[in-house]
Amino acid sequence: MVQVAVLGYGTVGSGVVEVIEKNKDMVNKKSGQELNVKYILDLKDFPGDPYEEKIIHDFDTIINDAEISIICEVMGGVGVAYQFTKAALMKGKSVCTSNKELVAKHGPELLKLAKENQCNYLFEASVGGGIPIIRPLNYSLTAEKIESITGILNGTTNYILTKMQREGADFDSVLKEAQEKGYAERNPEADVEGHDACRKIAILSSLMTGQNVDSEKIYTEGITKITADDFVYANAAGKTIKLLAKSQALANGQVLAMVAPFLLDKEHPLGMVNDVFNAVFVTGNMLGDSMYYGRGAGKLPTASAVVSDVIDCARHLGKTIMCFWEEEDAVLADQADVASRYFVRADVSAKEQVLAAFGPCETMTVPGRENDFAVFTDPIRERDFEKLCESLGAAVLSHIRMF
Amino acid sequence: MVQVAVLGYGTVGSGVVEVIEKNKDMVNKKSGQELNVKYILDLKDFPGDPYEEKIIHDFDTIINDAEISIICEVMGGVGVAYQFTKAALMKGKSVCTSNKELVAKHGPELLKLAKENQCNYLFEASVGGGIPIIRPLNYSLTAEKIESITGILNGTTNYILTKMQREGADFDSVLKEAQEKGYAERNPEADVEGHDACRKIAILSSLMTGQNVDSEKIYTEGITKITADDFVYANAAGKTIKLLAKSQALANGQVLAMVAPFLLDKEHPLGMVNDVFNAVFVTGNMLGDSMYYGRGAGKLPTASAVVSDVIDCARHLGKTIMCFWEEEDAVLADQADVASRYFVRADVSAKEQVLAAFGPCETMTVPGRENDFAVFTDPIRERDFEKLCESLGAAVLSHIRMF
Repeated sequence: MVQVAVLGYGTVGSGVVEVIEKNKDMVNKKSGQELNVKYILDLKDFPGDPYEEKIIHDFDTIINDAEISIICEVMGGVGVAYQFTKAALMKGKSVCTSNKELVAKHGPELLKLAKENQCNYLFEASVGGGIPIIRPLNYSLTAEKIESITGILNGTTNYILTKMQREGADFDSVLKEAQEKGYAERNPEADVEGHDACRKIAILSSLMTGQNVDSEKIYTEGITKITADDFVYANAAGKTIKLLAKSQALANGQVLAMVAPFLLDKEHPLGMVNDVFNAVFVTGNMLGDSMYYGRGAGKLPTASAVVSDVIDCARHLGKTIMCFWEEEDAVLADQADVASRYFVRADVSAKEQVLAAFGPCETMTVPGRENDFAVFTDPIRERDFEKLCESLGAAVLSHIRMF
Repeated sequence: MVQVAVLGYGTVGSGVVEVIEKNKDMVNKKSGQELNVKYILDLKDFPGDPYEEKIIHDFDTIINDAEISIICEVMGGVGVAYQFTKAALMKGKSVCTSNKELVAKHGPELLKLAKENQCNYLFEASVGGGIPIIRPLNYSLTAEKIESITGILNGTTNYILTKMQREGADFDSVLKEAQEKGYAERNPEADVEGHDACRKIAILSSLMTGQNVDSEKIYTEGITKITADDFVYANAAGKTIKLLAKSQALANGQVLAMVAPFLLDKEHPLGMVNDVFNAVFVTGNMLGDSMYYGRGAGKLPTASAVVSDVIDCARHLGKTIMCFWEEEDAVLADQADVASRYFVRADVSAKEQVLAAFGPCETMTVPGRENDFAVFTDPIRERDFEKLCESLGAAVLSHIRMF
């Protein structure tokens, strides 16, 4: 019998208890032994809850119980969760988490601590919710040099962009509807400004390179500037707009990582990832392209990923599973030097000026629209593009990178 | 240092040697120690080949060399490959294979043998080429009850159907072109009749249920009857036609497995899997839908998967990795009882008769076509559908199941 404690009885925490209970036969079979949730730590009481008697309020009970060998940290945040995780690992108790913020911020330190104490720090649920991606990167694509990872890693923004694309609605009204439906937080900043996706690509980039990619150094741009007008052009061109989190291992050893909206072909595998679904597109030097698709969030998918980590811990008690993520910081490429193609929507009255600025390149008009037109530029360095946009001033109505 | 032998120096075998050499740093790091290819077994000599001196012709040299701990069986077939694999496992040497025929036929016996001898029989490359799917099923989706698996598991037929869909060409001419390009074998039967996909879904079904799903009992229908006319209707309806290998765990404990062409929405994630790409769509009771996409064949993708198995073996020397696939046979549901919706293309002169037979259901005509029309039936049991088709005789021009 393996005893488990769950820290935090919110959405994911209650999902973890539910998955272990509902899929008991499968979970125990795959663990090679019976799993039992002994404690659930939460500030609140849950009178009437079927697991009421397991609820406790004092972490010390867990940390001092020698029977507990696996802890699910599904509290979130980087304060108390960090303290509890460190304390657990130092006692040789494995920790499984969905806390992407903590993994992105302290991943390598916690992995080292786990190794020193012959236990595990696993975080399958921290990226892509229920999509298996951490384990495929660590266990499956082991014979590959991974060249790039591109993900749709945030369900809220993908839901909003999908709605905008299909219905021609503008950002504000779709956001409001998403908030009413519970798909977006009342304070949506972490999602719509790209911070959530940024933490996730930092984790994936770190696993790709084996070095530490600091999420705070990753160029991050959200979707708040995307308009219904942009989608008119995207649709007319057979394209769509997605918030992509990208990371590329450059030949010079640097890492090029960013989060930004991109215009991409509807036919691209990432172009068909709609609604709250997420996907991670991985390119390796032998395998070429592969993609991992599924529900990026939600109680049960996320909990299923946490429990798959619990099972892995149960299979490897007393032994640390290999994970390559060193404390050494990766060198990030300077965003200003990156060359991208751009979609630029511009005022038709400044057409000559715009065409002169970007040189000979593909242009597009949409029948019935008299005030704007679009150009698809050749690859141009970001610093140069910004200067051109400045010089064009109000003539540039919007611009989006092309994938 | 871990010594490896490769059995068969054909496409995949030479790929295995190439991946181990080209990605040496990564492979050794992930293995936790250096891997070395000591022998390559082949009937032929390869004068001038960079690995010429490793080529041997006698399997006994390998089996009697105590240094060899991992063997890659990439010969194919179920005769000699079976004998060699058994002999290796009985000596405690792990075997990694891309041989789907052997895995489908003798998987549980070889897994048992590996367990008895504290070694491993791994077969990531046997399904979906370079797509990680075996390991995600065994290691990642461990907290799930998997309800169904649906795959596009054969690159040749997917290439042919994609071409037919895009170009309006007929089956024979596209097959001929695929043969000229090397995408289809000179004897294409195993691919176009669905046998290859059948073996792969048998393997996936066995891992889904933990019981043995016998590939010879799976209903299998190929793509040779699909016509350019069918694609005219599919395109007009916003759908496409794919050869799907499906497996479903029924509530009564039976397994419903089949390989057949299906009409499915272009918007479905499997609908966008084109050309030689493969994908596996998995539905779990907690996670919901997830999909794994990539190159289903090819020298380096397949070899990369074999080498990922070699790395897994090197990480687990002397220890058998859990894999649930018992020798006990799963009970397959009777195909005749399965209810499906059908697309039926029929002679317009028999319209009344056809509509009377299938009852009130959706119909479709394509502008400019005067001789045929289509119905999309309600769900109907296969045995009943066949009787109706018989009664309608030549009025039914073609029929395809709907996904």
